[in-house]
Amino acid sequence: MNSPAKTSFVLSQKHLLGIEGLTVEDITGLLDLAEEFVILNRQIEKKRTTLRGRTQINLFFEVSTRTQSSFELAGKRLGADVMNMSASSSSMRKGETLMDTAVTLNAMHPDLIVVRHHASGAVALLARKVDCSVINAGDGAHEHPTQALLDALTIRRNKGRIEGLTVAICGDVLHSRVARSNIILLGAMGARVRVVAPSTLLPPGIERMGVEVARDMREGLNGADIVMMLRLQRERMNGSYVPSVSEYFHYFGLDEKKLSYAKPDALVMHPGPMNRGVEIDSIVADGAHSLIREQVEMGVAVRMAVLEALSRNLPNA
Amino acid sequence: MNSPAKTSFVLSQKHLLGIEGLTVEDITGLLDLAEEFVILNRQIEKKRTTLRGRTQINLFFEVSTRTQSSFELAGKRLGADVMNMSASSSSMRKGETLMDTAVTLNAMHPDLIVVRHHASGAVALLARKVDCSVINAGDGAHEHPTQALLDALTIRRNKGRIEGLTVAICGDVLHSRVARSNIILLGAMGARVRVVAPSTLLPPGIERMGVEVARDMREGLNGADIVMMLRLQRERMNGSYVPSVSEYFHYFGLDEKKLSYAKPDALVMHPGPMNRGVEIDSIVADGAHSLIREQVEMGVAVRMAVLEALSRNLPNA
Amino acid sequence: MNSPAKTSFVLSQKHLLGIEGLTVEDITGLLDLAEEFVILNRQIEKKRTTLRGRTQINLFFEVSTRTQSSFELAGKRLGADVMNMSASSSSMRKGETLMDTAVTLNAMHPDLIVVRHHASGAVALLARKVDCSVINAGDGAHEHPTQALLDALTIRRNKGRIEGLTVAICGDVLHSRVARSNIILLGAMGARVRVVAPSTLLPPGIERMGVEVARDMREGLNGADIVMMLRLQRERMNGSYVPSVSEYFHYFGLDEKKLSYAKPDALVMHPGPMNRGVEIDSIVADGAHSLIREQVEMGVAVRMAVLEALSRNLPNA
Repeated sequence: MNSPAKTSFVLSQKHLLGIEGLTVEDITGLLDLAEEFVILNRQIEKKRTTLRGRTQINLFFEVSTRTQSSFELAGKRLGADVMNMSASSSSMRKGETLMDTAVTLNAMHPDLIVVRHHASGAVALLARKVDCSVINAGDGAHEHPTQALLDALTIRRNKGRIEGLTVAICGDVLHSRVARSNIILLGAMGARVRVVAPSTLLPPGIERMGVEVARDMREGLNGADIVMMLRLQRERMNGSYVPSVSEYFHYFGLDEKKLSYAKPDALVMHPGPMNRGVEIDSIVADGAHSLIREQVEMGVAVRMAVLEALSRNLPNA
Repeated sequence: MNSPAKTSFVLSQKHLLGIEGLTVEDITGLLDLAEEFVILNRQIEKKRTTLRGRTQINLFFEVSTRTQSSFELAGKRLGADVMNMSASSSSMRKGETLMDTAVTLNAMHPDLIVVRHHASGAVALLARKVDCSVINAGDGAHEHPTQALLDALTIRRNKGRIEGLTVAICGDVLHSRVARSNIILLGAMGARVRVVAPSTLLPPGIERMGVEVARDMREGLNGADIVMMLRLQRERMNGSYVPSVSEYFHYFGLDEKKLSYAKPDALVMHPGPMNRGVEIDSIVADGAHSLIREQVEMGVAVRMAVLEALSRNLPNA
Repeated sequence: MNSPAKTSFVLSQKHLLGIEGLTVEDITGLLDLAEEFVILNRQIEKKRTTLRGRTQINLFFEVSTRTQSSFELAGKRLGADVMNMSASSSSMRKGETLMDTAVTLNAMHPDLIVVRHHASGAVALLARKVDCSVINAGDGAHEHPTQALLDALTIRRNKGRIEGLTVAICGDVLHSRVARSNIILLGAMGARVRVVAPSTLLPPGIERMGVEVARDMREGLNGADIVMMLRLQRERMNGSYVPSVSEYFHYFGLDEKKLSYAKPDALVMHPGPMNRGVEIDSIVADGAHSLIREQVEMGVAVRMAVLEALSRNLPNA
């Protein structure tokens, strides 16, 4: 299938640095465009040529499987020349600054740079130093916009809408850029968002983001259409309180009993990779209510939509 | 050369998990198809488009040079979108299970997954969790089918046949998936197979695989048409008896003197990478009887044949 | 832009192992061809098909960002099938020799192998073992020819010529393959070359390469048209005298004051990655006299020229 995209949607932004700053039209436009790629990716020949001759650089300062491979496949299926760069093989080890890396890459005339970085705000800083479009693939505890977009696409496909739904985001909200991007997107699209976590894993002042706060799962899941579990980010809990795994699972791990507090047709999501038996029980993760596999599928489609939409903004495109 | 393959051969299997389970027609069909790619690979433009728009994922849980690069070039020359994933950069480090990795990759709609894993049977387990074709690129001490196929192609090209030949497989049979796959393939194709090793490096009950067993090189190489040396897998000998290098070379290393026990026109093979001076002497490795370079060349051709043959089985293909 | 290259230039060499051995016509031909790629790389569709079906292997035994990614993008934009191999994932770790790696790769029928190695002369040794063209991407303290070519292109574009210019190469000349290749190229093209370094960082007998030697920056930069700073290669100073960073910057770091010793229109270069505050001050690195970003841009163009020129020499090409 080499036919051009049907939608003529153009993003209001040059970069995708976060959900913050996107309009409702941007979000809807990306989700609609992604639907085309869901169809394409289920075909034998998963290929378009819209990014032919364009250069996409995946610059990952943190290890990632699904996000990086999702962006890599997305770019290749659109016909781009894709180059992966990871921190371990980069000049960063020779002491080069992030800004010098940005300036260096920019001189190679990329069209799209996908960046994951451990520091909040690093991707936006980098974007100021380059001429091309930059996509945030996760920066510290700040944002992970393509994750929120793929979650929204998954919800919309399964519930027919986002507006008016009650979404419970549960677990390690404090360290989660996934939670942050989802809260912003779901709020903008008219969902009712509730975060459910022990107070040690909640950022101070989270209420100001317009969410309800629950401190236990029974209260938090009550009436929920979507139960979105977060990965327990033990690797980021340096110095702070780290809950024991068994204690955490007892109070906040999603099992069948806790899921029964939500609506009978509630659906379960997780951004992956899962800690089975920590934040989610295998019976729920693999059960009929789980959308976890579909989230991964939507991830490739959403990233293709983002790459294609941003490339339409490039000069002379 | 963009002409389609001449042979219309279709594999009887969805996956290539091992030589076990292949028919003689499967083996012959793959070798015949590989012959086309031997010709293609010697041309300037080494390119077909039969896998255009298909996604091939190389998932390597063990480090490999020749096998991974051979599969990578094979896929690229067939026009596939090829993505490499290694254990070191994967979510496995975040504690994700092999099965979750399989389910995640599957949701990205690959057409072909090439897997190397340190555990016997892991590739077959993974194959049950995905919709696409899976190729075993080596699993523990179990099988390494493309190595046996490339060895068979090399033998057939040099001896004109496999049936009726005497093949001596020498060295660390105990830890060798290469030996196991070769024993099954050569037996199926009518060769007489002899394993030559110290008893500490022979799996118990090896005779039941229909091979002759020799415990010294003079007896084992007597009358051999093919002398297939194995790599001494010292990295896998955890806990068990590890022979000293000089002692091993003295008794089982292939030098000119030991090669003289075989037929005068005997040919020498090694799957690589070689430990020169351990299992093989440089004079023999680089000598006129050596097929070692040709084995590598056949490796790319055989893997192209496997990728193309499996892709013909895909739905709507 | 898929039009073929305008220049019909053919390199006098099969390999690019160093600037040594190139004729003035080779150098000029490569720079002229690179100019075409400067234009191509500034377009939206940065793509040619002249290397379609060709296989390029990037074999890096040392970590590199800009050189490896520059070669990778160069090959992909020319339509080649590009495969990266790094030492960490290679059979070298299993004890395979460099020569066996060369022979193995050669059997896979690559057309171009780009090699970086920590030992001087290793690339030339490897070139003797393979049938295809080999490009030296840096070998020990010996040569880094594409760096010298991209520096020459940058100079020529900014000064209109190379002949007759005074170029001061400053800093760690002892460990620098960049300095060595530049000295040879600039000398061949008729520039006046001066090296400026403390005696501990000068190779003995450097005068025999036809350069002037200065031991302080005031003397060395006097009348210079180009000030080429070198990276302080502290990682290579095993055993020898390692200057302190602050002392080094005081005497040899390029700041605005030292730059004033050069001609008023002098231009500043650095091969990167920079140690800001060690060999160069940020005000100079980012200032109006700096060509550092342009050097990176020229790097991709020059490597495309090298790949295309060498591919014209291949049999049947």
